[in-house]
Amino acid sequence: MEERLKKPGDHVVLLVGGVGGAKLALGLARVLPPGSLTIIVNTGDDFNHLGLHISPDVDTVMYTLSNLVNPKTGWGLNDDSLHAMRMVRRYGGPDWFSLGDKDLGTHLMRTQLLSEGLTLTEVTGKLCSALGVEHPLLPMSDDPVRTVLDTDQGTLNFQEYFVRERWQPVARDIRFEGSEKATPSEAVLAALEQASMIVIGPSNPFLSIDPILSVPGIRERIESASVPRVAISPIIAGKAVKGPTAKMMAEMGIDVSPVGVIDHYRNLLDGIILDEADGTLRDKIESIGMHTSAQQILMETQNDKIRLAVTLLHWVEENLS
Amino acid sequence: MEERLKKPGDHVVLLVGGVGGAKLALGLARVLPPGSLTIIVNTGDDFNHLGLHISPDVDTVMYTLSNLVNPKTGWGLNDDSLHAMRMVRRYGGPDWFSLGDKDLGTHLMRTQLLSEGLTLTEVTGKLCSALGVEHPLLPMSDDPVRTVLDTDQGTLNFQEYFVRERWQPVARDIRFEGSEKATPSEAVLAALEQASMIVIGPSNPFLSIDPILSVPGIRERIESASVPRVAISPIIAGKAVKGPTAKMMAEMGIDVSPVGVIDHYRNLLDGIILDEADGTLRDKIESIGMHTSAQQILMETQNDKIRLAVTLLHWVEENLS
Repeated sequence: MEERLKKPGDHVVLLVGGVGGAKLALGLARVLPPGSLTIIVNTGDDFNHLGLHISPDVDTVMYTLSNLVNPKTGWGLNDDSLHAMRMVRRYGGPDWFSLGDKDLGTHLMRTQLLSEGLTLTEVTGKLCSALGVEHPLLPMSDDPVRTVLDTDQGTLNFQEYFVRERWQPVARDIRFEGSEKATPSEAVLAALEQASMIVIGPSNPFLSIDPILSVPGIRERIESASVPRVAISPIIAGKAVKGPTAKMMAEMGIDVSPVGVIDHYRNLLDGIILDEADGTLRDKIESIGMHTSAQQILMETQNDKIRLAVTLLHWVEENLS
Repeated sequence: MEERLKKPGDHVVLLVGGVGGAKLALGLARVLPPGSLTIIVNTGDDFNHLGLHISPDVDTVMYTLSNLVNPKTGWGLNDDSLHAMRMVRRYGGPDWFSLGDKDLGTHLMRTQLLSEGLTLTEVTGKLCSALGVEHPLLPMSDDPVRTVLDTDQGTLNFQEYFVRERWQPVARDIRFEGSEKATPSEAVLAALEQASMIVIGPSNPFLSIDPILSVPGIRERIESASVPRVAISPIIAGKAVKGPTAKMMAEMGIDVSPVGVIDHYRNLLDGIILDEADGTLRDKIESIGMHTSAQQILMETQNDKIRLAVTLLHWVEENLS
């Protein structure tokens, strides 16, 4: 099988949501040349707000890869101001979703280009190109898919749940409205077709990765892919680095550990990288036929991100090829 | 006729465009209590830009009346920044229409409220109320009317002509697209009905006042009104204080003087206040049956605006009631 001669790093396809996934994307982008990495990003969080089309995860990855991201938050632009939002607040408008002034430039431009008939993929390409992002960053679909949560406080849009209510409500059901009618873009299909390795980033499985998998054709292609498919655990020692992953797993009665993550990603993974803190789980995970490795997976510094990317690529090449 | 017993200042209705008219609006607002002044504003300049509904003249008047206007330009907000626009420029987007960051808050809020189904009149009321504007500021219509110019450089939207091309093209024809299907809002009709005096501000007759008059019913109501109808000349000594009024009059072969203005406003005026610099025209103007007075009409300081408002009200009460 000639395909097997491809090295895993020849064309890495990474699936991510926002902040956590963006960190791994940055690490991979620093060690893989353009053409060897494609990043497929969740757009289930996208929403229309104050007349603008906002793609929070796309922006987080784009700002991260262009080194413009606010290092304190991991999202938004560095050195941004909130003059427009203060004016919105003065008018009694919704200010729970913070939009920086520079950040607004992105939303204005995206909204304008979409209104001119460009697809979200084309718009993202233009914005990324202007910011010097060299690796393709692909929205999971050009069709609208919207994550909606049924919670103990009623039905909430993703941003209402995540930002306005600070993910405190208990999620009873998560839906990806529009996904049944959505199609992956040609660029997404081509990337999966040409992948030599598929990586699921350390993003929230339910809110960041599942929306991507909900687009008809994407899950099926990953399930049937003949290339190594690996994840970085979003759970370290029973906790999420950021956001509601652990809280949601507990509420759903799922084991809050990499084992629960593997179970959720059934049929989609050949291996998973855990944190050293979860090293005792290695035997259990290997016993279910899954490759695994325990590493330092917390990404705080730029070096952490590059180190994890290198570790991931080497480990897959040595163990899963 | 009992109506004649009403004093002209009981309910002044002022028709204006942007900067020049806003100055007179401010003067009148300072000397007339709420309930005695309604300002009808041109919306022929409104346009959709970067996904936002922008109402330049409404904003100029609103910012002026709330003392938030940039005193250097006469439009936009004081102490505003351009972070969003710099980002738009970085993306290669259109930056010829300058949108300040705080100013964007207004456009975001207006766009949001319009998308919720409020009329432009209702939205303007909400925004004005939040900024402490006490006198009703009414868009000429809730229906879209768009000023379009046929010029020696092709057909241009108002903002393309005015801002992007800095009103340098020669206008051959001016159209108010949509006006034939537009209706004045009920609030505009009620204001004209209750007017004890109608004032045409020192705005551009062709680009600021004509769009208002193009809305079916407004011109007719002013023509048949039995109350004093007066204008402040937008021309002083053959020149416009600001903008293309004089240039356009010359290009159209109209006398660049208050006499040309009176001719343009045929059947709509009982009197006009000129600048002292044009005092020699008084005899000529009175000879055609028009009341007139020569005053200092250039409004530079806050005092100038109040003085002109007081002069106007007294002059009408003494001479046209």
